[in-house]
Amino acid sequence: MGRIVYVNGEYLPEQNAKISVFDRGFLFADGVYEVAAILQGQLIDNKQHMRRLRRSLKELNMPSPADDATIESIQQELIRLNHVDEGVVYLQVTRGAADRNFAYPEDSLPSLVLFTQEKEIIDLPAAKTGIKIVTTEDIRWGRRDIKTVALLAASMAKMFAVNNGADDAWLVDQDGYITEGSSFNAYIVTRDGTIITRHLSNDILHGITRNAVLQLAGKDGLQVKERPFTVEEACQAQEAFITAAGIFVLPVIQINNNVLGSGKPGPVSTKLRSIYIDMALEQV
Amino acid sequence: MGRIVYVNGEYLPEQNAKISVFDRGFLFADGVYEVAAILQGQLIDNKQHMRRLRRSLKELNMPSPADDATIESIQQELIRLNHVDEGVVYLQVTRGAADRNFAYPEDSLPSLVLFTQEKEIIDLPAAKTGIKIVTTEDIRWGRRDIKTVALLAASMAKMFAVNNGADDAWLVDQDGYITEGSSFNAYIVTRDGTIITRHLSNDILHGITRNAVLQLAGKDGLQVKERPFTVEEACQAQEAFITAAGIFVLPVIQINNNVLGSGKPGPVSTKLRSIYIDMALEQV
Repeated sequence: MGRIVYVNGEYLPEQNAKISVFDRGFLFADGVYEVAAILQGQLIDNKQHMRRLRRSLKELNMPSPADDATIESIQQELIRLNHVDEGVVYLQVTRGAADRNFAYPEDSLPSLVLFTQEKEIIDLPAAKTGIKIVTTEDIRWGRRDIKTVALLAASMAKMFAVNNGADDAWLVDQDGYITEGSSFNAYIVTRDGTIITRHLSNDILHGITRNAVLQLAGKDGLQVKERPFTVEEACQAQEAFITAAGIFVLPVIQINNNVLGSGKPGPVSTKLRSIYIDMALEQV
Repeated sequence: MGRIVYVNGEYLPEQNAKISVFDRGFLFADGVYEVAAILQGQLIDNKQHMRRLRRSLKELNMPSPADDATIESIQQELIRLNHVDEGVVYLQVTRGAADRNFAYPEDSLPSLVLFTQEKEIIDLPAAKTGIKIVTTEDIRWGRRDIKTVALLAASMAKMFAVNNGADDAWLVDQDGYITEGSSFNAYIVTRDGTIITRHLSNDILHGITRNAVLQLAGKDGLQVKERPFTVEEACQAQEAFITAAGIFVLPVIQINNNVLGSGKPGPVSTKLRSIYIDMALEQV
């Protein structure tokens, strides 16, 4: 590795990037995060990520460690220090360090941690081949609209996929409807070309990329319906895809044992990926 | 403060007790924990805590950082170094540090962190007065039988109680039944003297103290029924109490706006607390 990482006011070599074991992010998952994409060294949709961060903090009555301009200057400094052309910048806010107690501390200073990850986004190999999805029970908590670090269930779902020969997992609620993926929103395209994705509620993350993609789809004349869809409906879909900040739009070619359409990335997914990339590149 | 804390092989002053920001305990709540009571400098029911730790690790396919004897020697060394007569020793295992990825790393070394907290257990003031409980929706994930650090919902429930003038919260499932408390098991005593507590399943933590108390109750000739009970039934109960490793048995005197019995700790709760303390003191 060898990155420079930001921890509570300091820029540190990653091997020295440490946090107190009393930090409530470590002891209670009492923290929230955001991941913003970087293209050509520039942040994509970062204002929306900051807005969602503020909402997460507010929902948890968590104090803010810094204003948006300060956080953005740290993001940019890390991109510069680590020479990141394409990838993501991760930021995490926690309620800070205090002796262990389920009650929130009255006087803790919130922690702020940021690091970058280099990765291919535009030429992501999986975008050309499409990915395989398996479905598994959604056992996460009831406030998935808050972007917290209580991600163990999501991580377990990802491993369920890996252990079952798939790339990732879609999660299924108690009524048999897909909520979203392990770390991304989920969409199907019906045989008449309508894009279906679950409506916003506490059941799913309110994706920044989701919002942008649905707007772009509408502008492009594509039909969009925000409603729940079942595993069975997904398996019979013409196409499917996922969206998240670090992958943009990624086609799905198989759900469980069902190959979708031709088994290759479909035209709607491919087009949405293309127009989303165009929109993102306009920001750089 | 001024404690000595154990972090991955080192005994450190607490201000130096730090963990990598890449530790999956910090980024994904990918960790499990145990809290064992200390009386007269001795660990209480620790073999059972170790057994539950092994089960948590197994359920999450998480590697073990050390064998039971090694962990117990660290617990005892911390008790000695910090001169703890009465309190708890907290231990946390995480999947260790790795670059951020929802998939488990293949080669991370699990982290092991332990610290002590001094506190009164036998003469806990709340045991004399009893505590006030409010009920709130149980929004936690589906695997509460695994003792993970994904504790944000539990922490939020505790704060809901504090903000509503109560001492702590009992959690209510979608069907109106109590599951357990924010960080303890929950019991009511009916007017005919029967102790009711929810049966074991993935809905609740399989409490070490719960197990011991139910055994002691049976030996003492008390009737015990393990079944769900509603908020309404709880509000009409003769008595109520909670159990956890760091409090033993603690009487409840009020649930929401309903004062139970005489408004003082009831005879069954008081007796169970007493015989549990006797049993614990036999271990020291």
